Order: sequence, then structure tokens, then C-alpha cells
Amino acid sequence: KAQSAQAQITVDITMADDKWTDCVNNLKGVILDMCGVLYDSGEGGGFPIEGSVEAVKRLKASDLQVRFCTNETQATREKFVAKLRRMGFEIDITEVFSPAPAVVAVLKERGLRPHLLVHDDVVQEFDSVDKNNPNCVVIGDAADYFSYQNMNAAFRVLIGLKKPVLFSMGRGRYYKETDGLKLDVGVYMKALEYACDLEAEVVGKPAPMFFEGVLTDMGIQPHEVIMIGDDLMNDVGGAQQCGMKGLQVRTGKYRPSDERHPTVTADGYVDNLAGAVDAILKHRGQ
Amino acid sequence: KAQSAQAQITVDITMADDKWTDCVNNLKGVILDMCGVLYDSGEGGGFPIEGSVEAVKRLKASDLQVRFCTNETQATREKFVAKLRRMGFEIDITEVFSPAPAVVAVLKERGLRPHLLVHDDVVQEFDSVDKNNPNCVVIGDAADYFSYQNMNAAFRVLIGLKKPVLFSMGRGRYYKETDGLKLDVGVYMKALEYACDLEAEVVGKPAPMFFEGVLTDMGIQPHEVIMIGDDLMNDVGGAQQCGMKGLQVRTGKYRPSDERHPTVTADGYVDNLAGAVDAILKHRGQ
Repeated sequence: KAQSAQAQITVDITMADDKWTDCVNNLKGVILDMCGVLYDSGEGGGFPIEGSVEAVKRLKASDLQVRFCTNETQATREKFVAKLRRMGFEIDITEVFSPAPAVVAVLKERGLRPHLLVHDDVVQEFDSVDKNNPNCVVIGDAADYFSYQNMNAAFRVLIGLKKPVLFSMGRGRYYKETDGLKLDVGVYMKALEYACDLEAEVVGKPAPMFFEGVLTDMGIQPHEVIMIGDDLMNDVGGAQQCGMKGLQVRTGKYRPSDERHPTVTADGYVDNLAGAVDAILKHRGQ
Repeated sequence: KAQSAQAQITVDITMADDKWTDCVNNLKGVILDMCGVLYDSGEGGGFPIEGSVEAVKRLKASDLQVRFCTNETQATREKFVAKLRRMGFEIDITEVFSPAPAVVAVLKERGLRPHLLVHDDVVQEFDSVDKNNPNCVVIGDAADYFSYQNMNAAFRVLIGLKKPVLFSMGRGRYYKETDGLKLDVGVYMKALEYACDLEAEVVGKPAPMFFEGVLTDMGIQPHEVIMIGDDLMNDVGGAQQCGMKGLQVRTGKYRPSDERHPTVTADGYVDNLAGAVDAILKHRGQ
């Protein structure tokens, strides 16, 4: 009897730790967040998180489809991918989904002319869009460009419109750079929402439309996909709302309190991407 | 019969226009907002709104008590009053209620040490407060000091606290300067609230405690007081929540859509302070 109780306890612990791997047998694709999962950003562009370069290589060599999904809006997608390749990651631009091309598509579809409150290095993504006499505002992670003057300029465009439209490339609260936490675009989105008494349209994670674009590209169903990210709300919560599984890595902006969040619980928590990939491939016998 | 219908219509129109003067006979005190009522701010400190200097003089010569209530936090109360006196207003510093002295009192009472995100010119108001090893953040209308760097610094203090406390000196959305609308402290308060998932404690209008301090100073009851302001939410709505009457002037940040606001309706709308004072004193036979 004592022995059976012992066995029971062992099983429970194993299940609590590895419950998320239950879905791994049906898995056909993996979506990876980038900053905080692949690398830590910071001075000089940042550096890879230990084991991540190898983990991406192993994933891409497996039978799983791999896509990268970022709310990064401080550089064009071209420059961003080039940076990651310099860090050693085998990533192709066609595998990367970011908000700027998505919002450009929406602007063109709706005939909207944006006033941009974005980082100088991402402006180029909007080259093909008419920006004269703006009838909406697009906000991205402008970082140091979030000056009082630039915020006022965006505000005045919005408050002057009969029906103000604000697009936000993401709704993140903060991210981690090598020298500390930094405020993300969501914070300034909330500021303009309050100033103008409106609700922004979010393009990027966790907007379902954004994730659905990635699923369509892979041609597979949500329950066949796992999302791995360091952001509980935008990566994990967003993926789960689309019917995917969501894993949180304990790197990047992860904080221990995330594991006690009142409304969002990840399907699993793993120390880092290398650990997640190791568990996935081991479970699939690869 | 035709004559009586005509008379009825006239009465209705009069009532709609002057309904607020019903309370004027019982009036014992008037609270005046400052920016947008007395003067328009702008380059060089701004300039008086037509008729306001004379209107303040007439009010103070009457049997009514007069107090000034501002969310101004871009200067010390001393410098602010000096500026208004240079414009010609007869105002004494003891008649002016502003958020900085109020928040200093709260900080001392609760033994809190603030990190300040305020305009350089108001820092002096906090000279008597211990600011080492901060355990709360105080935010004011920092204007150009609302840089990304300063916002990050305030955010990092808050996110590093076990129980983060944020005091906001007002919750205004925007105000009008001579060169256009400008974002007010409430917008940046909302930004930090979202970043840290907390609710700020507002000191200043429309916080009931702030208005109650003015009533106590006058030693009269809310129903004996009328508040005159250009801000529908913070002046009019705040005063009404304390049981006072609230008049909105059509100067400063007033916008015609204020008169169709879904939740807050002023007790009366007047073209400017001169018009309001004229109606009040005329109704009281002065």
C-alpha cells in the first residue's frame, strides 16, 4: 500500500510538469516569439539566449513547420531578420510575421492615410502608403521617439478627426533589454485611447487576425500548433484564444508571478527554448 | 389662448438658459478654475481671457467667498500666483488650492518617499520631502519632461515595488495653450497604470477630498457653492459629485460637444467668466 501511494505521487508530479507534452504527438507546427525567446535585445542589437540558435536548428530539421511571430516594430523586417542571422539564427524573411506589413495591408484595404508615431527605423515599411492629409494614426514601439512633442502631434491628428482611428502595432506593456525593462507600445496606445476617448485597433499579437494569418500560411489547424513565448498575455494568452497551445519560457520578460496570473495560465512553463524543443522532440522520438 | 401659449414658450426658454441661477440666492461661495477660465496659457505665460480680471474683482468685492482651484503643476504655487498677479488678477496665495501641497501632506502622513515625474519648475514644492530610496511615484503635468527615458525611470520604480503606489496630480486629458491642445497628466497616469496594472490615487480635481479641502477652508456647505470651470469632467463633474453646482464656461478647452456629453451635464453653460459673474451678481441684486 505504501508503495502504491509512492507511485501515485510520482505520476502526479510527472503530469504536472509535462502535461503540455500530451499535445505533442498531434503537433504539426511551432510558432516562436523572437525577443526574449531567441535573443535578449539591448545595446548593439542584443545577443542570443543560450541554446536558442541550436534549438531553432533542431526544430527546422524536424518534421514540424516553424514560423516566427514578433511584435517588433523598431526596424524593418529585412533589417530585423539580418540582425538575427548575424546572431547565428537560420531564419528566412518569409518565415517571419510582424505587424508593420499587416497594418500596411489594412491601411490600403480601407483607403486610410496614416500619421506615423513609430521608430525612425521602421518608417521605410510604410513607403508605399499615402501619408498626406492623414485620417488615422499608426503607433508602434517608437521608444525614444515617444517624446511629449511626438505624442502631442499624434493626439492632435486624432482629436481633429470626426471619427478617429488608431492602429497599434501590439499592445505589450514592457519588454526587457540588457539594461532593464522598457515601456512597450501598449502603454502609449492606452495613453492616446484615454486622451481621445477611443479604442485602438491592435495589429500584431495578441490580435486573433494576426495569429490566423500565420496559421493560414502554414495550412494547418490551431490545435496542431504550439506557440512558445516569454509574454504571458500576448504570446500565450493570444495563442490560446485562437485554439493553439501556449508555452511560456522563463527567459526574457518572464516574471515568477506570471505562473500565478489570475486569468491566463500557460499550458506549460519551460526554462528556455532549448528545454522546450528538447522536450517536444524527445516526446516525438526525434 | 394664443397669447398664453406665447407666454409659456418665453418662460421655457428663459428657464433653459438661466436654470442654474435658481441656486444663486442661497450662494455663499464661488470656486474658480484658473487656466481656461481666468487666462489662456501659452508662450510667455499666456494672457487673461477678456473680462476675467474685472470679473474676479467684482466677485471679490461682493459678499461671496472666492477660492481658486487648479490642477496646475508646472510651477510652484508662489510662481503661479505671481504670474497671475502680473496679468492683473487680485489673487492671494492663501486663496489658491493646487495638488502639489496636497500630495506633500499625504506623503508625510503616510511616510512615503516619492520618485518625482514632474515639471522641473514644481520640484521645489517637494523640498521638504525625503526622496531617497523611493517607495512611490508622484506624477504631475511634466509636459516636455514626459520623455521616454523619464517614463521608463518612473515605471522601473513602480514595477520594482512589492505594492506599487502612484499618485497623480490630476487626471486631465488635455488642455489648451495658445499654440494648440496639449496632453495632460491623466494621459501619462493611464500609461503607467496600464504598464504596472495598478490604479493611481488622484490628488487634485476631480478627487472629492481635494474639493472638500476647499469647502472646509471656506466653512460652508457644498450646496452653497458653485464651481466655474472649462473642464466638463474635472471641474463640473467633480464639483457635482461633491454636491456643488457646476458651471462650464465656453472658453479654454471647452468644445461644443461637451454640451452633449452622455454622462456629465453642467448646471449651466456660460460664454465666459465675465458672463457668469454678471448673471450671478445681477440675480443677487448686486
